[in-house]
Amino acid sequence: MENEIISWIYEAAEKIKIGLGDALKVDQKENRTDLVTNVDKEIQDFFVSKINAFDPNAKILGEENGQDQTPIGEGRVFVIDPIDGTLNFVMQQENFCIMIAVYEDGVGQLGFIYDVMQDDLFWGGLKVGKVYHNKEEISAPENKSLSDGLIGMNAALYRENLYHAQEIGRASMGIRVLGCAGLDFIAILKGTQIGYVSTLSPWDYAAGGIMMEQLGMTICGENQAPLSFQGREFFIGATQAAMADIQAFDEAKR
Amino acid sequence: MENEIISWIYEAAEKIKIGLGDALKVDQKENRTDLVTNVDKEIQDFFVSKINAFDPNAKILGEENGQDQTPIGEGRVFVIDPIDGTLNFVMQQENFCIMIAVYEDGVGQLGFIYDVMQDDLFWGGLKVGKVYHNKEEISAPENKSLSDGLIGMNAALYRENLYHAQEIGRASMGIRVLGCAGLDFIAILKGTQIGYVSTLSPWDYAAGGIMMEQLGMTICGENQAPLSFQGREFFIGATQAAMADIQAFDEAKR
Repeated sequence: MENEIISWIYEAAEKIKIGLGDALKVDQKENRTDLVTNVDKEIQDFFVSKINAFDPNAKILGEENGQDQTPIGEGRVFVIDPIDGTLNFVMQQENFCIMIAVYEDGVGQLGFIYDVMQDDLFWGGLKVGKVYHNKEEISAPENKSLSDGLIGMNAALYRENLYHAQEIGRASMGIRVLGCAGLDFIAILKGTQIGYVSTLSPWDYAAGGIMMEQLGMTICGENQAPLSFQGREFFIGATQAAMADIQAFDEAKR
Repeated sequence: MENEIISWIYEAAEKIKIGLGDALKVDQKENRTDLVTNVDKEIQDFFVSKINAFDPNAKILGEENGQDQTPIGEGRVFVIDPIDGTLNFVMQQENFCIMIAVYEDGVGQLGFIYDVMQDDLFWGGLKVGKVYHNKEEISAPENKSLSDGLIGMNAALYRENLYHAQEIGRASMGIRVLGCAGLDFIAILKGTQIGYVSTLSPWDYAAGGIMMEQLGMTICGENQAPLSFQGREFFIGATQAAMADIQAFDEAKR
């Protein structure tokens, strides 16, 4: 299965790159900075057609085209983000990712994050027992504490100081705001960030979460609960040591 | 002169890349996240020796080795940041730049920003009448307003809402926090960010400011005054349209 998914991703990336010179059709979703383009929709349709041909029984949970309510817990579910970081895609024509995850009966099996313009693929999970950066197996990043690393941060959480975001940022070596969840997960998998604090939808965290857990790191939602896979929610992903440091801010408030 | 400087930059980058596997000697400067390494100091020394051989009368204004008080206004001054984004350099071994600028009697002549690990050089200014991305001349980015673009932001300014940082961020399409002034200037020169709001020292803004002005964009300090080139200060660099939008926040408060 993984070879098929990788080939779809590379094929989708070619379509995206060929289209970069064309005029985008950009629409607003929930607000003026929440964008979707014709390319997001076309690439999701491309993946859906590939998945349907590969496994007609599989279900799909995806950001676009009204497929955002599929439950994660039953059977095989492909979780798709055709273009993660749509604002970067529109404004920068770089710094965006394709993300795909595969769940079986609620258990994450495979995650794929592809930085399209850097041609950098991270993939792996429980099904293969490893995580790869392109063709090389990667080892688990050092279990650094919060004070020893950079942390990816959602700008609105930081501005409003929700969920102790400013305390977390101050306790770290510094925050980074990249505007693309996939790039934050890639940084965590490479060991160049020790975590990521944001509000995310299932297709934003599924692939990265599977690979983080495969490498011994942890993810959770609000109040340290498991992620719900239902709509947008608070998300923390971090090394085990940094997660303990972050959760201590919650405990301190109780 | 520009050919010599470019050859020094590539030679310095090779030294940095060869040393990436070695143990870094990291010291704290003003606080625990303000770092300097043996590499910053060695690379500054390398540039100083090259400059001294090239023009014994030139003065040097640089971040390391006690050369941070040189006045900008008299004679030829080389402004050097041997490693811009030292925290990224230490934590990520990527996302850092070499920056050099040349001033003559207080007038910016040439700026150079080199993203070492991406092998991406931006250089140019008044002396050559152009700005280049590697060997290709680049054209002026579109004069986008604040509401139409992403803006680079200093995390502490944003957290504390100094200088209307949060209003500026909200009015933009989104903030990005990259941890490396050089990368923000590169994004502005490429047109993928419309500006950058931070507190910077002369070696952080000299090269980028020269290239921005060459392409018709504007830079300024606190209260819309010219930058002082004396110590760390508030900095805005933006397209002309975005600068007007940002300065309107100042006017509105008066």
